[in-house]
Amino acid sequence: MIKTVVLHKNTLDYVYVKARNKLVLRLETAKDSFKECRLIYWARTENDIGKRKSSKMELKYQDNMLDYYYTEVEFSKIARYTKYFFELINNEGEHYYYTEYDFTKTYPADGYFEYLYANPGDVIQIPEWSKGQVYYQIFPERFRNGDYSNDPIDCVNWGEKPTRENYMGGDLRGIIQKLDYIKLLGADCIYLNPVFKGDFNHKYATTDYYQVDESFGTNEDLKELVDGCHARGMKIILDGVFNHCGTSFEPFLDVMKHQENSKYKDWFHITRFPAETTHRDYECVGAYKWMPKLCTSNTEVCRFILDVMEFWINYAGIDGWRLDVADEVDPHVWRAARRYLKEKYPDIILLGETWGFGRKMLSGDQMDSVMNYIFRDAMLDFIAYEKINPVQLDERLNHMLAGYYEEFNHAMYNLLDSHDTPRFLHSCREDKNKLKLAAALQFLLPGAPAVYYGDEAGLTGDNDPDCRRTMPWEETKQDQDLMAWYRRLSEIRHQEPSVRYGDFRTILTDNENNVYGFERSHEGVHIKVIINNSGKPAEISLLAGNGVKLKEIIPLGEQNCRNFSENGVSIPFKLEPYSVKIIKFEEVEL
Amino acid sequence: MIKTVVLHKNTLDYVYVKARNKLVLRLETAKDSFKECRLIYWARTENDIGKRKSSKMELKYQDNMLDYYYTEVEFSKIARYTKYFFELINNEGEHYYYTEYDFTKTYPADGYFEYLYANPGDVIQIPEWSKGQVYYQIFPERFRNGDYSNDPIDCVNWGEKPTRENYMGGDLRGIIQKLDYIKLLGADCIYLNPVFKGDFNHKYATTDYYQVDESFGTNEDLKELVDGCHARGMKIILDGVFNHCGTSFEPFLDVMKHQENSKYKDWFHITRFPAETTHRDYECVGAYKWMPKLCTSNTEVCRFILDVMEFWINYAGIDGWRLDVADEVDPHVWRAARRYLKEKYPDIILLGETWGFGRKMLSGDQMDSVMNYIFRDAMLDFIAYEKINPVQLDERLNHMLAGYYEEFNHAMYNLLDSHDTPRFLHSCREDKNKLKLAAALQFLLPGAPAVYYGDEAGLTGDNDPDCRRTMPWEETKQDQDLMAWYRRLSEIRHQEPSVRYGDFRTILTDNENNVYGFERSHEGVHIKVIINNSGKPAEISLLAGNGVKLKEIIPLGEQNCRNFSENGVSIPFKLEPYSVKIIKFEEVEL
Repeated sequence: MIKTVVLHKNTLDYVYVKARNKLVLRLETAKDSFKECRLIYWARTENDIGKRKSSKMELKYQDNMLDYYYTEVEFSKIARYTKYFFELINNEGEHYYYTEYDFTKTYPADGYFEYLYANPGDVIQIPEWSKGQVYYQIFPERFRNGDYSNDPIDCVNWGEKPTRENYMGGDLRGIIQKLDYIKLLGADCIYLNPVFKGDFNHKYATTDYYQVDESFGTNEDLKELVDGCHARGMKIILDGVFNHCGTSFEPFLDVMKHQENSKYKDWFHITRFPAETTHRDYECVGAYKWMPKLCTSNTEVCRFILDVMEFWINYAGIDGWRLDVADEVDPHVWRAARRYLKEKYPDIILLGETWGFGRKMLSGDQMDSVMNYIFRDAMLDFIAYEKINPVQLDERLNHMLAGYYEEFNHAMYNLLDSHDTPRFLHSCREDKNKLKLAAALQFLLPGAPAVYYGDEAGLTGDNDPDCRRTMPWEETKQDQDLMAWYRRLSEIRHQEPSVRYGDFRTILTDNENNVYGFERSHEGVHIKVIINNSGKPAEISLLAGNGVKLKEIIPLGEQNCRNFSENGVSIPFKLEPYSVKIIKFEEVEL
Repeated sequence: MIKTVVLHKNTLDYVYVKARNKLVLRLETAKDSFKECRLIYWARTENDIGKRKSSKMELKYQDNMLDYYYTEVEFSKIARYTKYFFELINNEGEHYYYTEYDFTKTYPADGYFEYLYANPGDVIQIPEWSKGQVYYQIFPERFRNGDYSNDPIDCVNWGEKPTRENYMGGDLRGIIQKLDYIKLLGADCIYLNPVFKGDFNHKYATTDYYQVDESFGTNEDLKELVDGCHARGMKIILDGVFNHCGTSFEPFLDVMKHQENSKYKDWFHITRFPAETTHRDYECVGAYKWMPKLCTSNTEVCRFILDVMEFWINYAGIDGWRLDVADEVDPHVWRAARRYLKEKYPDIILLGETWGFGRKMLSGDQMDSVMNYIFRDAMLDFIAYEKINPVQLDERLNHMLAGYYEEFNHAMYNLLDSHDTPRFLHSCREDKNKLKLAAALQFLLPGAPAVYYGDEAGLTGDNDPDCRRTMPWEETKQDQDLMAWYRRLSEIRHQEPSVRYGDFRTILTDNENNVYGFERSHEGVHIKVIINNSGKPAEISLLAGNGVKLKEIIPLGEQNCRNFSENGVSIPFKLEPYSVKIIKFEEVEL
């Protein structure tokens, strides 16, 4: 009996189209089963076995059960009509061959996999600008009150304790006033929580998808905000809440009025007629009757959503949509949206909300990115709760990175917290050193780090509504040390392409000292990051290769800049408790 | 280190929606690692661990590397908001727990999988009529000449050796005349090779998608043929050739005429202008300049395809489409076709051509079925070439069945041959006993058996063009024994729901005697099938349980019908060389 497992299928999970002439193939094997895996491939019209090509696969990720191998194959014109199988060499040097049907020690005569044909539409493309960028998330009601004239009449004072019901007066004018602040922090793209006319201070119960809520300003204000972002080289995306609506949304009112005769009756999931405003009569978010679920399998609803999405791209020039509860919406909506919108506006992004693995939405036909709560979970367990050790953290990160195509990994919305969670600082029991560590991982690991407004200023708070406190604008109320840390991390990400786009590789998992290290590499530059996640100082040493220029980026120390020309020099470093060290290795000519 | 592999993801490959209140969940484990797997699940709002439910999973399939476990979970209303993980018990009785992140011996406190929400559009639905039905494939030019007036002028005599170029005069009138013959054979659905105006005798180079080729008859004849099928309780599907067209297709002519100024220039993959009719100037099928590939990623082309598909459903009342080279067409076309057509005509079927695993097209959003050449490969290797033994056949069949959702397995177009392959009889070196064995497997295994016209009459032939010989209509030229065999197999399939829809289970893999056995079960009826694939007689014995009525279906022998009330009686059977035995076990009240 065969004592291992090798996995490959002719599906998008295992073969994806990077360009019309470029395929990425993936193979999974039981952990540590093989020391080398190769892809053997050839044009199906080629009968000469001697002319088959062999490409060594790279072991990119490893979690607690599987090794993940990748290879990229380039074709002269179009990726097509290619037969292939895999050759695997175990630690004893024995060769195995894996085809669709078989796993044998004899060279296979049939049962090959085959890649057929790359259509233009098969190419998985996400906007370049979205890869590795820095997001800044703003909850409009709490960021800044820039216009007192549009405040809700029952506004409480700026800085009071948030409740589910109270209003504080934040608006679009306030955001416009602080665009320079956001730019200075290093943000590339603002993600704005809902701004359309809707119920409640969070506006997630939309009642008019074509109108900015009057307490936030006007449609013109939104346009001005977008223009202001663009003038500063920033992008901005809006929150599209299409899973559900508010009870004053016209079509829902129409159903309540005309019941079974309403032309909108199939826009919702009405469970009994006559329906009243109670969660027993229609599906809603949770059992929350104020937010009836839209029936997104309905073709008219799909058309409505596409129209709204296009309207704001056209009218205000927004750069894309963050899509609320995207993982409960019928996927045909996102497929239609992607086809329809990207044809006209290829540079917009679609970012889906999900709290788990968003694999279903990230096959190239729906989203460009998803909210990566999986990343947050790992940060919480490692840094805030100290529940997992460096080896487990590494397995988690590898499992996460292996779960999506490489293209998407750089675009993932990597957050530590949001309007729906406790602030990370709160989860760390207000330990700012821990928040700094987590932010370092967030900014230095693959993905697009997303800062929830105020985290950079030391704003804290428990779960909703407490995580929606007002932004402090007096400098004395802002943690300047933390703010400098975020700015420095943004700066590194912008200065170092290896941090923004580079490959990821684990270099250290030291459970005893609670130290974790990884490397990001791009075109001869290697940024090595070492995290000491314990209250004790740690000593580590890194091997410098031949012809390497070495520079400490954080903290700046005596080994600030050195050239190495000897091979295999081991350089010791000290790490303070709960600290991070970032060292740049640059390959230089000898 | 963990020495096994367990696989589950929150994707359609592992969780599918059978009904809005019914989920099927799948788990894969390294072969023979566990003796029991259970799904532990609960509503996410439920905090009491004691209220978690546990469902034993069924080990349905096993190939050479993996065990495939399944379970079906029913919800009171809608499948939603359900957390879950897996409990696995190995042969030593040790319990393990598998979550998204971990595989541990301790009961997991987090890292659970979660199923979110089943939209109406997420339900994987294929027409009931298509499950387990019998197809009959007709190549119109060679089935019957029913109208000499529409014969191509250069027709050769019926029965002459087919070449790539010659015509024999077959037409729609001929098929209409033989509908009773087809019905008597037991066919439920005719699949017709292309009938639209096109080049060559095979008509795969379509030049007018709205017109029946004049050598086959008229659009009215097609309507009459469809009506004739329906009057006999049969269905009929047409061949949609949308991957490519003929060079006289209007849009292609327009490009040749107006070149870069043609409004159709993006309908094709033109590689250089000015383009001439040569394979160097545009992509085509192979290097075959007469069949330019359509650019199916183009939105206008997609719209054109949908219009053609709808036209024939409307005009002639056809029951669906077999889609040529479906695996090279941009999948967005099939997604759009499914959404658009099924909303208006929910009972039509979409059947895609592919020669490999059609997993990409069978996720519920594109096809209802694919041409299962994978099945043919297994039959050839086991029966015609004797290259694989019963254990390997079983691994192949299990790998195949585990590769698709159960819903699709019953609808798979299981063929032994087609207009694109040598006749199975030819591959068996004209050994009719072997063809009979293969047909028995085809009709008794899960899926929809597809008979290529003439196979039932002993028609043989090498690869295209030889596999497209004319159908012999004189009874003396038809193999009556073979024909009776096909009719009997159809009859069994129609009489026994366990054959048509039943579960599949391997019961015997005897490499020494080259004997393979399996069972199909449905509502207390078990049809056991034993195949002797060797030239020597074999003896096997089957265990009859308590309270079982046993009946031999093929061949009818002395043990024709017996009742068993003792438990564990072993009943011996003899199998002639290259023969099949079909025994029905019916659970009876004692």
